[in-house]
Amino acid sequence: MTIRVGVLGARGKVGQAICAAVRDAADLELVAAVDKDDALEVFTESGTQVVVDFTHPDVVMGNLKFLVENGIHAVVGTTGFDAARLDEVRGWLAGSPSTGVLIAPNFAIGAVLLMRFAEQAARFFESVEVIELHHPNKADAPSGTAYRTAGLIAQARREAGVGVSPDATSTELDGARGAAVDDVRVHSVRLAGLVAHQEVLLGTQGETLTIRHDSIDRSSFAPGVLLGVREIANRPGLTVGLDPLLDL
Amino acid sequence: MTIRVGVLGARGKVGQAICAAVRDAADLELVAAVDKDDALEVFTESGTQVVVDFTHPDVVMGNLKFLVENGIHAVVGTTGFDAARLDEVRGWLAGSPSTGVLIAPNFAIGAVLLMRFAEQAARFFESVEVIELHHPNKADAPSGTAYRTAGLIAQARREAGVGVSPDATSTELDGARGAAVDDVRVHSVRLAGLVAHQEVLLGTQGETLTIRHDSIDRSSFAPGVLLGVREIANRPGLTVGLDPLLDL
Amino acid sequence: MTIRVGVLGARGKVGQAICAAVRDAADLELVAAVDKDDALEVFTESGTQVVVDFTHPDVVMGNLKFLVENGIHAVVGTTGFDAARLDEVRGWLAGSPSTGVLIAPNFAIGAVLLMRFAEQAARFFESVEVIELHHPNKADAPSGTAYRTAGLIAQARREAGVGVSPDATSTELDGARGAAVDDVRVHSVRLAGLVAHQEVLLGTQGETLTIRHDSIDRSSFAPGVLLGVREIANRPGLTVGLDPLLDL
Amino acid sequence: MTIRVGVLGARGKVGQAICAAVRDAADLELVAAVDKDDALEVFTESGTQVVVDFTHPDVVMGNLKFLVENGIHAVVGTTGFDAARLDEVRGWLAGSPSTGVLIAPNFAIGAVLLMRFAEQAARFFESVEVIELHHPNKADAPSGTAYRTAGLIAQARREAGVGVSPDATSTELDGARGAAVDDVRVHSVRLAGLVAHQEVLLGTQGETLTIRHDSIDRSSFAPGVLLGVREIANRPGLTVGLDPLLDL
Repeated sequence: MTIRVGVLGARGKVGQAICAAVRDAADLELVAAVDKDDALEVFTESGTQVVVDFTHPDVVMGNLKFLVENGIHAVVGTTGFDAARLDEVRGWLAGSPSTGVLIAPNFAIGAVLLMRFAEQAARFFESVEVIELHHPNKADAPSGTAYRTAGLIAQARREAGVGVSPDATSTELDGARGAAVDDVRVHSVRLAGLVAHQEVLLGTQGETLTIRHDSIDRSSFAPGVLLGVREIANRPGLTVGLDPLLDL
Repeated sequence: MTIRVGVLGARGKVGQAICAAVRDAADLELVAAVDKDDALEVFTESGTQVVVDFTHPDVVMGNLKFLVENGIHAVVGTTGFDAARLDEVRGWLAGSPSTGVLIAPNFAIGAVLLMRFAEQAARFFESVEVIELHHPNKADAPSGTAYRTAGLIAQARREAGVGVSPDATSTELDGARGAAVDDVRVHSVRLAGLVAHQEVLLGTQGETLTIRHDSIDRSSFAPGVLLGVREIANRPGLTVGLDPLLDL
Repeated sequence: MTIRVGVLGARGKVGQAICAAVRDAADLELVAAVDKDDALEVFTESGTQVVVDFTHPDVVMGNLKFLVENGIHAVVGTTGFDAARLDEVRGWLAGSPSTGVLIAPNFAIGAVLLMRFAEQAARFFESVEVIELHHPNKADAPSGTAYRTAGLIAQARREAGVGVSPDATSTELDGARGAAVDDVRVHSVRLAGLVAHQEVLLGTQGETLTIRHDSIDRSSFAPGVLLGVREIANRPGLTVGLDPLLDL
Repeated sequence: MTIRVGVLGARGKVGQAICAAVRDAADLELVAAVDKDDALEVFTESGTQVVVDFTHPDVVMGNLKFLVENGIHAVVGTTGFDAARLDEVRGWLAGSPSTGVLIAPNFAIGAVLLMRFAEQAARFFESVEVIELHHPNKADAPSGTAYRTAGLIAQARREAGVGVSPDATSTELDGARGAAVDDVRVHSVRLAGLVAHQEVLLGTQGETLTIRHDSIDRSSFAPGVLLGVREIANRPGLTVGLDPLLDL
C-alpha cells in the first residue's frame, strides 16, 4: 500500500523538487500540494498520512500544531527550531501519542553519514583535520556543517581520552594552519566551480582514512526526505536529526 | 598499571615493529621477545599477560595451545585460520574460560573502518563502486580486501532490498567497467609510487560519499595490534576480526 | 573597445547560456541572437565581428560559408567535422585570408588542459592509468575524452621511448584491470550523483602526480567559448581545437 | 655507451639511495662513491663523467670548483645556493665552457611538474587555492614548495591581468580561509600518516581542475637525479632547477 503524502511550501524551489520526488516514488502518492494562501484542511480532507514541510520559521509552528492535532505525521526541513520550539512540539505530541514528527537541519544522507562516521572513527587516529570547500559566494567560514563535524569529533576524542592532534609547527604564516574549532583544525576553501563539499582526514602511523561528501545539487535532500516520509509513522514522538532513522 | 606484553616472531620484520611499538607505549611493557628456537616457557616465567603472535601457520597452533593452557591472552596476526582451526582454538578456550584470543586478518584500523562504514552506508545510495590502487608488483586483481569490501556491500544492499547500481552502458571496450564482484563493480589500478589504497564511492541524486583508505607503510598494523593488546583481557573467548573491539 | 558578438543557435540550451555569458562580459557586446528561421544577414547588418555557432551538422556548413564570405570570424562548437569538411572550410578561408575560424570538439578549458598536461608528463613516469567517472546514464565506456587522453599519453610515451607501465598481475578477475586503450589502462566508473570527471594518475618511485578534471555543469564550455571569441580575430585561417589558443 | 657516474656524499641516506639507483640503471655505471675524508682525485683517476653531489653547504663549493676545473659535469642537490654562490659557479664555468652544472632545490619530477602546470593553468581560472599536507613533525607552515607554488601562480595571473580569486567571506573564524601568499590562499594540513603532499585547485564556472603531487618516500628524488645525470653533458654552463631539462 502506498503512503499518502502532502507537501507544504509546494510552490517553492525545494517544495517543487519534493513533489517531483514523491510523484516518482512507486510507494508514495502525492495527494496534497499546499502553499501559503491554501487552507491546511486540504490535508485532513484528502486523508494525507505524512506532510513534508519546507516553509518558513514564521509559519511552521502553526502548521505543525495543526498536523499533530489531526494525527498527521510530519517531516520538517524548515529552519529556526531552538530548544523552546522543540519543547512546544513535544507538548503537542504528548496529546497525540501515535503521531511522529521529524525535524532535521540536514536531509543530505551523505552529509549525515559523514558526520557519524567521522565521530565514530575520531578516537582511533592520532590526528584529524577537516577541509570544507564551497563556492566563492558563501558568507561564512567555516561552514555550519564543518563546525558541527569538528565539534562531534572533538567530543568523541575527549570522551575516549584521546589528546589533541600532534603539531610541531613553530613558524606559521598567519592562518596557514586553519581555524581551531574545539581544538580540531578546519580549513575553508572557496573556489568557483565548486558547490558544497567536505572532507575529514584521519591519520595514524602509516595510514590515513579520508571521508568526503560532495553535494553538487540542491536536490540532494530528496532521498533523505523520502526516507523520513517512509519511516516517520513507525517513530511516534519527536525525532531530531536524520541520524536515528539511519539505524547505524 | 602497565600490561606485560610478549612478542612471538620477534625477530621478523613485523615482530620488530611490534616490539618497538610496545616499547614506545607508556601503558605497555615488553617483557619477552621470542622467536623460533626460543622456549615458550619464557612467557610463563616472565609473567607475560598478553602475547602478540605474527609467526607462521605451521607453528601458530602450537603457540596458541600453550598460551591458552597457561591463561595468557593472545593477539594473532598469523594467517591460515580456517573454520577447523578456529573450532580447535574455541575448544582450548572452553577449558580456560577467562582467557581471550583475538585472531584478525587485518590490523590496519583504517581498513577495518572503511569496510564497516561502506557496509553501513551501502543501502542509502543508488550506486556504489570500489576502486583499489596498489603498487605494480601485486599479483592478484582485485585485492583480497576489495573482494571482502564488495561482498559486504552487496550483502548489505541485498538485505535492505536495494537493487544493483544503475548502468546504461551499451558500448563497452572490454574491461572498462571493471570486474563484477557479487554485482559490485571493482576497478584495480596498478601504479608505481603507490603502496596500498582503497576507495569506496557511493552516490545518489546530487551527492556522493567517498571513503578512502591509504596505507603507505607496513607499520600501519601497529595501532590495531596495540588496541588488541589493551582490550583482549576484557574479552574472554575467541574474537575473530578487529571489528568487535572498535565498539562501533 | 568591445567585440561585437553574434550567436547562432541562440534559442537552444547551449545558445542561451552563451548569450548570457556574452552579456555578462564587459568586453563583449551581444548584437545578434539568431536561430533557425532567422536570416543570416542579421550578422552583416548588425556589424557582427565574431559569431558563435552551436547548431547542427546539417546547417553548420552553410552558416560557415556565409560567415567566411562576409569576413566574419567564427567560433564553432557544432559537431560532425571530418577531414573533408575541414578541407572545405580551409578552401573558403583561402579566399578570405584575414578571417579566422575556430572549430573545437571540447570547450571546457579544464578538460583541454588536463589532456595537455597528461601528454607532457607521461614520459617522466614509469606508470600511468586513467580513471573516468560519469553519471550512470552514459552509454559508452570509456568516454570519448578518455580515449583521446589515453591515446595522447601512449603516443608521448612511444615517442620518448618509454615502455608500457609495469604490471605483475597474474590472477585477474575479468575486467578488474580495466580496458587497454593503446596500452594505457582506462577504468570507467558509473555512479549516480556524478556528472563528468576524469583523473590521470602518473607514478614513479616514491611519488605520484594526479591530474583531475571535474565538470558539474554544462555551462563549463562558456569560459572556453569566450576565450575563442576574444582570440579568433588574431588567428586568421582555420584553428582546430582550443589548445593553440592556450599558448602553453 | 654507459655514462661513468660518481657520487659525493655517498654514505649519507640520500647518497646511498643514489648509488643504488645508478647501479640499477642499465645506461649508467657507478665508478666512484666518495664521502668526506675521501680525496676528490678519485673522480679524475676513475674517469668519472658526471658527479652527483648531495653533501653540505660548507663543502659543496670546494667540490664544485674541483669538478668544473677538471671538466667533470655536476648534478647538485645540496642546499644553500644564493645569488652570490651561483655567480661564483658561473665564473668557474666561464673557464671550462663545455662543462655543465645543474643545481636544483627539488629533484622530485612530480613536484616540479605540478608547479609548472599550476603556473600555466593559473590564468584560465577565476579561482585558485593551494592545499599542502605534511606529517605533523614539520616546523614551517606553509611548506617552502607551497610558497613557491603560490608565488608562481600569483605572478602568472598578474601577468595575464587576472584579478584575485573571488571570495564573499564576511564572517570568518580566525584562520579558516588559510594564509595569503601573494594573494593566493594556502592551507597547511598536518596529519600523522602523511609524508609530503600538495594540491592545487583551480576553478571556474561549472568546472575545476586539480593537480596533486604525493611524495611518500625520500627516494622520490632519484628519477630526477638520473634525468639530470643523463642530460647535463648536453647542457654546458649553469642550469638552475630541473625545469629546463623537462623540455615542456
